[in-house]
Amino acid sequence: MLQQLFSPSLLHALDLIGIFVFAISGALLAVRKNLDVFGIAVLAEATALGGGLFRDVVIGAVPPAAFTDLGYFVTPLLAVALVFFLHPHVERIQNAVNFFDAAGLGLFCVVGTAKAYDYGLGLTASACLGLVTAVGGGVLRDVLANEVPSLLRWDRDLYAVPALVGATMVALCIHFDVLNAFTSSLAVITAFVLRLLALRYHWRAPRAWQRRSTAREEE
Amino acid sequence: MLQQLFSPSLLHALDLIGIFVFAISGALLAVRKNLDVFGIAVLAEATALGGGLFRDVVIGAVPPAAFTDLGYFVTPLLAVALVFFLHPHVERIQNAVNFFDAAGLGLFCVVGTAKAYDYGLGLTASACLGLVTAVGGGVLRDVLANEVPSLLRWDRDLYAVPALVGATMVALCIHFDVLNAFTSSLAVITAFVLRLLALRYHWRAPRAWQRRSTAREEE
Amino acid sequence: MLQQLFSPSLLHALDLIGIFVFAISGALLAVRKNLDVFGIAVLAEATALGGGLFRDVVIGAVPPAAFTDLGYFVTPLLAVALVFFLHPHVERIQNAVNFFDAAGLGLFCVVGTAKAYDYGLGLTASACLGLVTAVGGGVLRDVLANEVPSLLRWDRDLYAVPALVGATMVALCIHFDVLNAFTSSLAVITAFVLRLLALRYHWRAPRAWQRRSTAREEE
Repeated sequence: MLQQLFSPSLLHALDLIGIFVFAISGALLAVRKNLDVFGIAVLAEATALGGGLFRDVVIGAVPPAAFTDLGYFVTPLLAVALVFFLHPHVERIQNAVNFFDAAGLGLFCVVGTAKAYDYGLGLTASACLGLVTAVGGGVLRDVLANEVPSLLRWDRDLYAVPALVGATMVALCIHFDVLNAFTSSLAVITAFVLRLLALRYHWRAPRAWQRRSTAREEE
Repeated sequence: MLQQLFSPSLLHALDLIGIFVFAISGALLAVRKNLDVFGIAVLAEATALGGGLFRDVVIGAVPPAAFTDLGYFVTPLLAVALVFFLHPHVERIQNAVNFFDAAGLGLFCVVGTAKAYDYGLGLTASACLGLVTAVGGGVLRDVLANEVPSLLRWDRDLYAVPALVGATMVALCIHFDVLNAFTSSLAVITAFVLRLLALRYHWRAPRAWQRRSTAREEE
Repeated sequence: MLQQLFSPSLLHALDLIGIFVFAISGALLAVRKNLDVFGIAVLAEATALGGGLFRDVVIGAVPPAAFTDLGYFVTPLLAVALVFFLHPHVERIQNAVNFFDAAGLGLFCVVGTAKAYDYGLGLTASACLGLVTAVGGGVLRDVLANEVPSLLRWDRDLYAVPALVGATMVALCIHFDVLNAFTSSLAVITAFVLRLLALRYHWRAPRAWQRRSTAREEE
């Protein structure tokens, strides 16, 4: 569906940029966890491709794009090389990484939703899979690194909500038959800007009622 | 297969009850791990739908029921709302949660086995997938929450064995061609009662020979 | 493809040996983590079948061989029985376990690559899936046991690289159309010997530049 709205090469380039920045975040976590170069590569690939892989397996698009398009596989390795040799510099430019990661988040939630709908899923399910496409790689990264997924932690800035908003916008556009290059770009940008604002102003999701007060007492 | 034995609406209602109670257990763990509301929702969905999702992907029933039936997706969110606002009360009624969780366990192992057989798997494989349907969500819940799955721990009351018994009963019924509303209900009830008895009398599985004595020395 | 090169029964026997030794490694970890007999069985099955299961789901070979061939399911249970009753002796013969595990690694990376190519994947993707077939079970084992996968850790001897070499050799043989009983055996043996050498001489992969010196300072 999105393939008809954008030139394929533009969409592919955006996809690869998203994969690259996700791979950077995986590689940086691997360095922090003191993994070897192979561990860095595995975490980079898992972060970059995990969300899309899950989506493709669930909607029955096998073999998944991650295995049929060589670029999807090679791009994370470039991120690995970059982090391996330059990671103190990459860490220093964490703001730039966050910026591109937010762009990847916005792009993936929109592309994921559209692809799931193309494969015959309902609108709610498509939006869900769009969300999973965007955040799944990060969850897999944290599970492999043996940490509680940062997506789920209350002390991290909102990550899923921007992706959910973007995915919902696409689903609504499909429902009202107004999905086009403009509206889908708008969904990408909305998710992207929301994520940047969440980072800037430390927006966080609430915890359950009682726990909040208990935690306060503990402090 | 089970669809012919029970009215579809009854089966669907039972399914949703099972999903609801599994979601409660996921949401409660999320609250205990101090996750935010989004983390609670993710753990609830993963616990409720994980087992069935794995089964459907393995037998090739894609897109999985979890993504084609809106009720499967919305029901865990009701559990999240309940836990979010009332979780101290929900924790207090842990016995009720255990009761319904045992019911879900019994139901899912039977439904999962029958569905896997419908998709052409052998009897042993079907029983295995019935077991996975029943316990898979809980394993995914614990992996996401970064804990050793309680299913695997020796200091927890038997959970898999009741499901295994229920799944095996269904496989035997299919083998002897006596699967009907009565025998499948019997399998559900057997698994359900076994789990309640395991909880009541703290039945546990043995550990490996040597380790047991080593652990005793450590005490 | 490999089915035409070897007698099916030989290939099947080699497969079962690989599954058996992988299951031993899963069962031993479960004993060390103090899991009960059911946890031992789950880790053994997950370690033995996880890699192949992932490959089959990704290439669309559902239901996976692990669920259609009873031998694949029963073999790990033999390993469980062995470890359950004799685990101090099994631990004592760790060298033998490592030897067979290396054999399983070599075999699985070759079989996995050939099977993925049979299902229409490209050569790079096939080699990747061959690698995943060989190491995926061990990663799943460690995730379920709530540990950082030993595959990713810098302080473990090379494990993935031998599998990667074997898988790459198969992919090259396919590319130059010289895959036969001899060359595929050569790939198995190369991966096998490389893994034994890595164990013998404690070959390890490097970590990222800066981290290495930081870690040295910490010591």
